[in-house]
Amino acid sequence: MIYITRRERFNAAHKLYNENWSKEKNDEVFGKCANANWHGHNFDLIVTVKGEVDPDTGFVMNLKDLSQIIKDEVIEKVDHKNLNLDVDFMLGKFPSTEVLAMEFWKILAPLIEAEGAQLHYIKLIETENNYVEYYGE
Amino acid sequence: MIYITRRERFNAAHKLYNENWSKEKNDEVFGKCANANWHGHNFDLIVTVKGEVDPDTGFVMNLKDLSQIIKDEVIEKVDHKNLNLDVDFMLGKFPSTEVLAMEFWKILAPLIEAEGAQLHYIKLIETENNYVEYYGE
Amino acid sequence: MIYITRRERFNAAHKLYNENWSKEKNDEVFGKCANANWHGHNFDLIVTVKGEVDPDTGFVMNLKDLSQIIKDEVIEKVDHKNLNLDVDFMLGKFPSTEVLAMEFWKILAPLIEAEGAQLHYIKLIETENNYVEYYGE
Amino acid sequence: MIYITRRERFNAAHKLYNENWSKEKNDEVFGKCANANWHGHNFDLIVTVKGEVDPDTGFVMNLKDLSQIIKDEVIEKVDHKNLNLDVDFMLGKFPSTEVLAMEFWKILAPLIEAEGAQLHYIKLIETENNYVEYYGE
Amino acid sequence: MIYITRRERFNAAHKLYNENWSKEKNDEVFGKCANANWHGHNFDLIVTVKGEVDPDTGFVMNLKDLSQIIKDEVIEKVDHKNLNLDVDFMLGKFPSTEVLAMEFWKILAPLIEAEGAQLHYIKLIETENNYVEYYGE
Amino acid sequence: MIYITRRERFNAAHKLYNENWSKEKNDEVFGKCANANWHGHNFDLIVTVKGEVDPDTGFVMNLKDLSQIIKDEVIEKVDHKNLNLDVDFMLGKFPSTEVLAMEFWKILAPLIEAEGAQLHYIKLIETENNYVEYYGE
Repeated sequence: MIYITRRERFNAAHKLYNENWSKEKNDEVFGKCANANWHGHNFDLIVTVKGEVDPDTGFVMNLKDLSQIIKDEVIEKVDHKNLNLDVDFMLGKFPSTEVLAMEFWKILAPLIEAEGAQLHYIKLIETENNYVEYYGE
Repeated sequence: MIYITRRERFNAAHKLYNENWSKEKNDEVFGKCANANWHGHNFDLIVTVKGEVDPDTGFVMNLKDLSQIIKDEVIEKVDHKNLNLDVDFMLGKFPSTEVLAMEFWKILAPLIEAEGAQLHYIKLIETENNYVEYYGE
Repeated sequence: MIYITRRERFNAAHKLYNENWSKEKNDEVFGKCANANWHGHNFDLIVTVKGEVDPDTGFVMNLKDLSQIIKDEVIEKVDHKNLNLDVDFMLGKFPSTEVLAMEFWKILAPLIEAEGAQLHYIKLIETENNYVEYYGE
Repeated sequence: MIYITRRERFNAAHKLYNENWSKEKNDEVFGKCANANWHGHNFDLIVTVKGEVDPDTGFVMNLKDLSQIIKDEVIEKVDHKNLNLDVDFMLGKFPSTEVLAMEFWKILAPLIEAEGAQLHYIKLIETENNYVEYYGE
Repeated sequence: MIYITRRERFNAAHKLYNENWSKEKNDEVFGKCANANWHGHNFDLIVTVKGEVDPDTGFVMNLKDLSQIIKDEVIEKVDHKNLNLDVDFMLGKFPSTEVLAMEFWKILAPLIEAEGAQLHYIKLIETENNYVEYYGE
Repeated sequence: MIYITRRERFNAAHKLYNENWSKEKNDEVFGKCANANWHGHNFDLIVTVKGEVDPDTGFVMNLKDLSQIIKDEVIEKVDHKNLNLDVDFMLGKFPSTEVLAMEFWKILAPLIEAEGAQLHYIKLIETENNYVEYYGE
């Protein structure tokens, strides 16, 4: 068992605002992240896949294919978008980094399994000081 | 003459959209950056000041003071904001990285001069692949 | 279960010198790190917390709170300090990166538990080539 | 149990080309990596060792010794080399990052064990977007 | 006058070997870089363009266009190539980082001028410790 | 004319304390940097040399030689040292980053000139947010 990783990047806007709460409570909990007119980030998405090495290629999985899956199914949908408004799989969900990472998992896990490998880990880096990691459970 | 530099960071939303143009022309020129519902970035702001070294402190200028000026006069106004809508000194201006850097210069140059040093250079990093530099003219 | 991480930074002096050994033995084992008049580092402290996502906030734990705890209880005590002389919880202990990481764990684990989350991992980066990781046992 | 890590670096040429396949099949699977006249990378090799902390040194293992072992037994053999042609332990093996990481493990694990610690993890970074991790099984 | 910069990356093999010299002299001058079977690097290419800001776009030059020019005219020709053997504009030239940077300048300067801007600066990063800069004269 | 750069690193302790001032004044001006028992940093030293390219080597100056000069004449004297107490060329001088950069210039400029090249620029990075640059005048 060996682990291979691909990084892809996207730039998006979002805000953290619970509609069931008052503006005061939102400001208290989310601080500047509740700004009504949005703010944004450069996100780094790190995807780790595990599996056995194929003796013909020396690969667990072709990183070109992994990169293409991540770009087609995730990056294309979130890059230069508003995570609260523009992303079909996030509608009605709270666009925290945690929830994003878990939704990315749901999309990527079956597609990677279809390639004969297994999604092991997702890391979503929001700033150089903050990131989230998810192992699927 | 020696040069000292301070980095500060902010996260903001913006879009690049010329209201005098059709949506088609905006999409053609600005591509994904014209997305109606905004996108965003982690910006790194690099500010370089030049001057002579003060023999009492070994400093051109106290970096604590430089940091405070940048935070109070720039970061506070753009961090977790929408650069098209929320920032007084950007209203009616086009929120490209180039224009932002030039507006930051106008704010910071006189404040740094008041401290006995001279603003030399501003660098505004939008992504790990794109940045703008300005020397004030 | 999801993992969130906060990075904080501090700059400190230390030396590695076992008082029970001769100067020769210290020089042999610790090399330049035994320099009598100290040396120092920019340390990066990485703290990972795990828990369930709160449906009201989308958060495992508010990163503002995590950052504040790390700053108040660790950074404040070690930043711009001498790790051999100035830090109450290090007195009588050997200021290697390993021991520091384990002491930081003792301080942070109960405070994070009091916030309803669980300390998962501490990484202490001493140089771009050397770091230590600790999972609490 | 605590984990310490050392990073070392090397620059090498390689190509990915399966001699049992046609040129067309190689181009299809390996793309630009199959270029007949080689290409190359700056590789970062990350080696993590685990063990108990020695009370006399505060160390799991002396990082000077770990660094020396990695340099003598791995870096010396692959730095500024052709991974397909010049490296004794890679002859007849496929020089993918996955296979390299596993071969490095075979070399390093017994040498680290002889120092009283245990090899835990190898990470081999090929580009800023691609890396491989191995835990020895 | 403002400066905008685009980073692109490529991975290539090369060797430093003066055919007019003995193997001994080559080894003495170029050390490991003279390895007969090549070695390689991840190169970062930084291209800075200067000009006035266009009031319609807020841009000196569209970074999408700058990126495309760099990719089409430079990256495409050197990425996953052997800089001694595979690159038309390097044939008969010495593939040091210095010479590469100067050749990239010759290619890019007229193409950027045709876009109404001016090439200001090229930086070619060979390793995290070594780079070359060129201003065209 | 082309510019080549070498990065070297060192770890050192220092404090900023003007002996002609009261403790209160030192604390006010230098803040945490005045800590009596020192603090420290990982410093990055960036040295840029300019000259013409030698047609036999493709080099302005052999980076192996540049690296060796920097290591022998600067790094050896400051690495794992106390910049206030241990460094001959800093005795009686104020160990700010500015003064260090200027002293490094005095040492390196004639040695690089003796190699047929010219020292162009020194950058001394103290933290990821703070650095100093010097061009020799």
